Amino acid sequence: MNFLALKSPYLIVVGDETDPIFVKTGIGLAKWRPDDCAGQLRFNSSAVDLGLPDLDVRAAASLGVRSVIIGAAPIGGALSEPWLGTLVEAASLGMDVVSGLHQRLASHQRLRVAAEVSGAALVDVRVPPDELPVASGRRRTGMRLLTVGTDCAVGKKYTALQLETDMRSAGFAADFRASGQTGIMIAGRGVPLDAVVSDFLSGAAELLSPDNEPGHWDIIEGQGGIFHPAYAPVSFGLLVGSQPDAFVVCHAAGRSALSGWPQHDVPDLQSVIDRTVELGRPHNPGIRCVGISINSASLTRREAAAWMERLGDEYGLPCVDPLMDGTRPIVERISAEFGYARACSRPCDGRRDVV
Amino acid sequence: MNFLALKSPYLIVVGDETDPIFVKTGIGLAKWRPDDCAGQLRFNSSAVDLGLPDLDVRAAASLGVRSVIIGAAPIGGALSEPWLGTLVEAASLGMDVVSGLHQRLASHQRLRVAAEVSGAALVDVRVPPDELPVASGRRRTGMRLLTVGTDCAVGKKYTALQLETDMRSAGFAADFRASGQTGIMIAGRGVPLDAVVSDFLSGAAELLSPDNEPGHWDIIEGQGGIFHPAYAPVSFGLLVGSQPDAFVVCHAAGRSALSGWPQHDVPDLQSVIDRTVELGRPHNPGIRCVGISINSASLTRREAAAWMERLGDEYGLPCVDPLMDGTRPIVERISAEFGYARACSRPCDGRRDVV
Repeated sequence: MNFLALKSPYLIVVGDETDPIFVKTGIGLAKWRPDDCAGQLRFNSSAVDLGLPDLDVRAAASLGVRSVIIGAAPIGGALSEPWLGTLVEAASLGMDVVSGLHQRLASHQRLRVAAEVSGAALVDVRVPPDELPVASGRRRTGMRLLTVGTDCAVGKKYTALQLETDMRSAGFAADFRASGQTGIMIAGRGVPLDAVVSDFLSGAAELLSPDNEPGHWDIIEGQGGIFHPAYAPVSFGLLVGSQPDAFVVCHAAGRSALSGWPQHDVPDLQSVIDRTVELGRPHNPGIRCVGISINSASLTRREAAAWMERLGDEYGLPCVDPLMDGTRPIVERISAEFGYARACSRPCDGRRDVV
Repeated sequence: MNFLALKSPYLIVVGDETDPIFVKTGIGLAKWRPDDCAGQLRFNSSAVDLGLPDLDVRAAASLGVRSVIIGAAPIGGALSEPWLGTLVEAASLGMDVVSGLHQRLASHQRLRVAAEVSGAALVDVRVPPDELPVASGRRRTGMRLLTVGTDCAVGKKYTALQLETDMRSAGFAADFRASGQTGIMIAGRGVPLDAVVSDFLSGAAELLSPDNEPGHWDIIEGQGGIFHPAYAPVSFGLLVGSQPDAFVVCHAAGRSALSGWPQHDVPDLQSVIDRTVELGRPHNPGIRCVGISINSASLTRREAAAWMERLGDEYGLPCVDPLMDGTRPIVERISAEFGYARACSRPCDGRRDVV
């Protein structure tokens, strides 16, 4: 379900968003699908720069762009009015419009009409599958790793993507499981958990990582943060339904207050680890933390290296910045703790169409 | 938002449901709104008996019934096909059809057409308000009590309704806040939390109990159970957004496995109390348990009295069956712990239209 087959190349619309935290979708696509990204559209030069050529809608059309993707994700997920003209123009020229926002593209009448006239598709990535099940609570076969975080936008998705890459390199059968709109765009499939009706949240998480072979690992993209005043329930539902054997805790260096909730402190790593173990244990008694993943962008390389070494010693866990160092120390820890690398006779057979 | 003004009298459809646990809506309406209930419609005599006159649709119409209410809530919330004929007949005769199920009534074409022709309304109680906010995490004024449970269908709603009654009698300003479809039908307002998109779950819970006067108590209907394999995320979101000062833990005597999840044990009271305090504390450091509410229907009165006395001693908390004894011992505990009964100069000013 929620199979995506976005038509490349893409134009990523950044608009006037100046805070990279709210351009997760654009930055993620530019990083993990660079060959599919033809350019970016920014309303002015102070908007976030994805490092792609600046194009307007007409230039993109003449270059053969086939999908215009909303690259920014404002709090609450509503599509602000100034963007609409850009998207209507794109749809009028026959390019698909792709959105990860809560509000459906077709709810904007001008856009719906433009797409109907030109035949362009309006693709809402954040629409969950119909007929989601209520969670069964049944233990499933195969192994699961969940990335959790001290806050939103700390690297849970990147950590999971890098773990998939590094685990496959190490001979594991491993598949990234996308739980958010950007991850779904990158992976081409997944379930947008934060858009699921609450009664079906754990059921959707169960669906995201179905039964699998004993040596196979699902690497599940985490959401929110277990202490977050708004998104903790989503984190909790994903934890309950994922029943992970292992988790990696992700943190952004230098962040002291929750992003967008300045009155709320970022919880410390130990609290997040302890609560994740406590809440996950009824659903998988063996749950354990196997690593710390740091987004160290705010530090110099030298500061980051020293700090991560200290953290690793303090917690007795491998500690990496996945974008700088990869995640091999965490993969080695998984191998040492669970020993499945050797037990699994063949490398991953690629993306199975289970979700 | 979600103001309801159901047209009485009602016909409650029980259908062929034989398990009272799945007839919560019908039983709740018959108990708390008896004067509005003209009768029940059962497909056969083994279906649950609400103690109302048995009527078919035509008889109900001739008696002046104005709303036909779906009284049963199957797991997953889908409307089973055999019911449809009954509802179509009711709509054809001009009676409103009222549903607390997830699936919208108008999605059934025969029903939609029948209602359009006759002018009957199709009322979906489980449709959350549009434009729900993301939670702010801000502490609100006024006091809040949340009912929590060891499982679904253990008496969280009845406990809250009885607490409202008894607190008002004791001079508190107190308002029941409905978070589920039956509670909303009884109260005439509320937010159906389990139907809210996950990202807005805590925000919806914040909306349900807005700022209020210092001595005022919101008595919030709990949902699910914090250890439940499917519904724990809803319970958690309600806890986070309600930021309760006090909670009452509800339990059904004699139930050892979760209703509908026979492989899962009902958690013990102490675990539920401890986890509720732990998860609620970041959002209200003063959170505490003020009572135990037992559904003792499975015991004799004598067994129940002895067991509840033991439980009360063991936990150092007032322990009542709200339907047998009312909740006065819990109200006294609230008064002793928080002292607001005297501080509040006037009794409740009735239902304020805040939600």
